[in-house]
Amino acid sequence: MSTAVLSTDIDTIESQLSAARTAIAERAAVTNVILTACGGSYAVMLPGEYFLNTRAGAVEAHAINAAEFTSRASRLAGEQSVVVLCSHSGTTPETVAAAEHARTAGALTVSFTNDPTSPLAQASEFVIPYQHGPEKSEAHVAPALLLRLLAGLLEAREGTALVEQVDAAVAQLPTLVPAVRDAHAGPADKYGQDYKHEPLIYTLAAGSNYGSAYSFAICLLQEMQWIHSAAIHAGEYFHGPFEVTDRDVPFIALLGLDETRGVEQRAVDFVTSHSDRVLVIDAAEFGLEVVEESLRGILAHLLFNVALRAYADALADHRGHPLSVRRYMWRMEY
Amino acid sequence: MSTAVLSTDIDTIESQLSAARTAIAERAAVTNVILTACGGSYAVMLPGEYFLNTRAGAVEAHAINAAEFTSRASRLAGEQSVVVLCSHSGTTPETVAAAEHARTAGALTVSFTNDPTSPLAQASEFVIPYQHGPEKSEAHVAPALLLRLLAGLLEAREGTALVEQVDAAVAQLPTLVPAVRDAHAGPADKYGQDYKHEPLIYTLAAGSNYGSAYSFAICLLQEMQWIHSAAIHAGEYFHGPFEVTDRDVPFIALLGLDETRGVEQRAVDFVTSHSDRVLVIDAAEFGLEVVEESLRGILAHLLFNVALRAYADALADHRGHPLSVRRYMWRMEY
Repeated sequence: MSTAVLSTDIDTIESQLSAARTAIAERAAVTNVILTACGGSYAVMLPGEYFLNTRAGAVEAHAINAAEFTSRASRLAGEQSVVVLCSHSGTTPETVAAAEHARTAGALTVSFTNDPTSPLAQASEFVIPYQHGPEKSEAHVAPALLLRLLAGLLEAREGTALVEQVDAAVAQLPTLVPAVRDAHAGPADKYGQDYKHEPLIYTLAAGSNYGSAYSFAICLLQEMQWIHSAAIHAGEYFHGPFEVTDRDVPFIALLGLDETRGVEQRAVDFVTSHSDRVLVIDAAEFGLEVVEESLRGILAHLLFNVALRAYADALADHRGHPLSVRRYMWRMEY
Repeated sequence: MSTAVLSTDIDTIESQLSAARTAIAERAAVTNVILTACGGSYAVMLPGEYFLNTRAGAVEAHAINAAEFTSRASRLAGEQSVVVLCSHSGTTPETVAAAEHARTAGALTVSFTNDPTSPLAQASEFVIPYQHGPEKSEAHVAPALLLRLLAGLLEAREGTALVEQVDAAVAQLPTLVPAVRDAHAGPADKYGQDYKHEPLIYTLAAGSNYGSAYSFAICLLQEMQWIHSAAIHAGEYFHGPFEVTDRDVPFIALLGLDETRGVEQRAVDFVTSHSDRVLVIDAAEFGLEVVEESLRGILAHLLFNVALRAYADALADHRGHPLSVRRYMWRMEY
C-alpha cells in the first residue's frame, strides 16, 4: 500500500525467481504449501491456492491470513512445508512474524515484496522482488511471478510440465494488460458517473477469480472509497446472500475461464434477472486466445485486477475521493 | 433450512457416529479431510477445518463450498481422502453432487443431515443424522457431532488422545446452551429495539469462531433479515475493511477462547474505539470453565451460534420480519 515505486531490474527478478524454484526442487520433501499474507497481498495468494489444489496430487496448498497463521501455530508448518509470503512494503508486521514463525518451524520461506531490503525480505530465505507503478513490466507483478513460482513447484514435485507454458503465458501480459485497460476505460467512466452515490456494492466470483473480487471489495471499495462491500462466493450466493438481491442492489460479477465458470454463470444469470444494477465482467473478452487453452482460466485473474482497477479509478474520480485517502491507515498506531 | 423437524433417536445417532469413526480408523491411508457443504452447512465445516489443522501433523484439512469442490475436480480428493459433507434437508443439489463426485474418486464419504433418508444420505457411505428443533438434544446438533467425529479421526490417525475429552466436553452442552440463551435474552431484546432500522451490520471474528460470524452474516442477516452484511476476518480487518469503520457503522465482534483470541482482541479494541455501534460477545462469559481448558476454544463456536441466534430472533421480532420469510428460496427455480 506504500506509494514508493521501486524498480528492481528484470534480470535480478528473474534470477531470484530461478533461485527460489531451484531451492523448492531440491528440497528433500514437500507435502504442503502455505500461502500467507494480509489484505490485498492475501488476495494475491488465493489464485495460487487454486492453481496448486486443482493440479497437484500430493502437495496440498492452504491460503491463510498471516495473523491467523502465526497465532494458530499449526503443526502443518514444518520442514516439509514451503511457506510463500507477500507484503508490498515488506513491513507488514503480521507477515514478517509469519515468515519468522515459518522459518523457526523449519519451512522453506519465499517472499514477494516490492522492497528487497525490507524486513520481510530479511526474514525470508528467498526473496522475489516485483515491479510496481506506471513504468512496471506487466509480466513482473506479484501475481504473475507467483504463478511462475508455483508452476516450477508443480513441475519439480509433481512432474507436470508447466514451467515453459506458464512462462510463455505470463509473457503475453505486456500485450494483454493495456488492451484490457483500454477496453474498460469508457465503460468504467460511465460506471463511475452512474454509481457514485452507491453506499454499497457487492462483488461475486468463484475459483481463481475469487481473490480479485475479494481484493476489489476490501481494498478498492472498503479501504480506498469507504463504500460498503463484501465479496460473495458465487457458489455460496444461493445459500443465503442472494436474498439481499433486489432491483436496486449493485453487484459486480466476474465470469472467468477456469473450471468454476459454470458456478459463476449461474450466479450471473440469477443476479442479472433480479437486480438492475449489475456489472458483469467476462474474461472471454480479455483476448486470452493467445494463451494456451488450459492456462486461460488461471491467467484471467490478472486481467480482472486490471479491469476492476479502471472502475475503482472512475469511482474515485466521480466521487472526488482519491484512492490514496485514508482515515486510519498510516495515520495512527493500531 | 427446511422447517421439518425430524428426531433420529440418540442411540441411532451414537451408533452411526461410532460406525463412521471406526471406518475412518480402519482406512488404510488418510492424508486429507475435505469438509464440503453450502451456506450455513459450509459454516459448520469451518471450525472443523480449524480443529484439524491446528492439531494434526500429517492429515491436512480443507473446507470448501460444494459447488466449487465438484467443479474443481481437484486431484486432492482420492482414496486417501475422507470427505465430510452436510446438508440439513439432505437435498442440496451441490452437496449431493459433491458426495457422488467424492465417492467416484474413491474417497470415504461421511454426511451429516437431519434426514437420514435424504438423497445426501443415500449418496454417502456413512450418515450421521442430527437433531433439530426445540426438543433437540443440544449435544446432538451437527457442529457438536462433527467435532466428535474429527476427534475420533485425530485420535485414530494422529495418536492424539481426544475422544474421551471431546465427548465429555460436548456432553456439557445441554447445561451450557440454555444458560447462554438466557443470559443473552435481555440484551438481545434491547439490541433488536436499538438496531432495527440498520440497513447493514458487519460481523468480525477469527479462528474457530469465523464460521459463526459467517453464518450469522449470510444466513441470519442477509438471507433471513435482508440486512446487508459481511463477515470480516479479524486479521484481515486492518488491511482494508477497517477503513469503512465510522461512529455509526454497526459491528458484531466475537471474542473467542482459541489460539486466535489475540487477533480478535486487537480488532475489538480498534472497532470499539472508532464506532459507537458495536456489540462484543465474549466467550469468556459462556461458563466454559466446566470444560477442560484445552477444549474451551473449540467449543465456543457452538455457544456463539446460540447467543447470535438470540440477536437474530430479536431483530426479526422488532422489525416485523420473521426469520422464515424468503423472496427467492423455496419460491422459484434457480
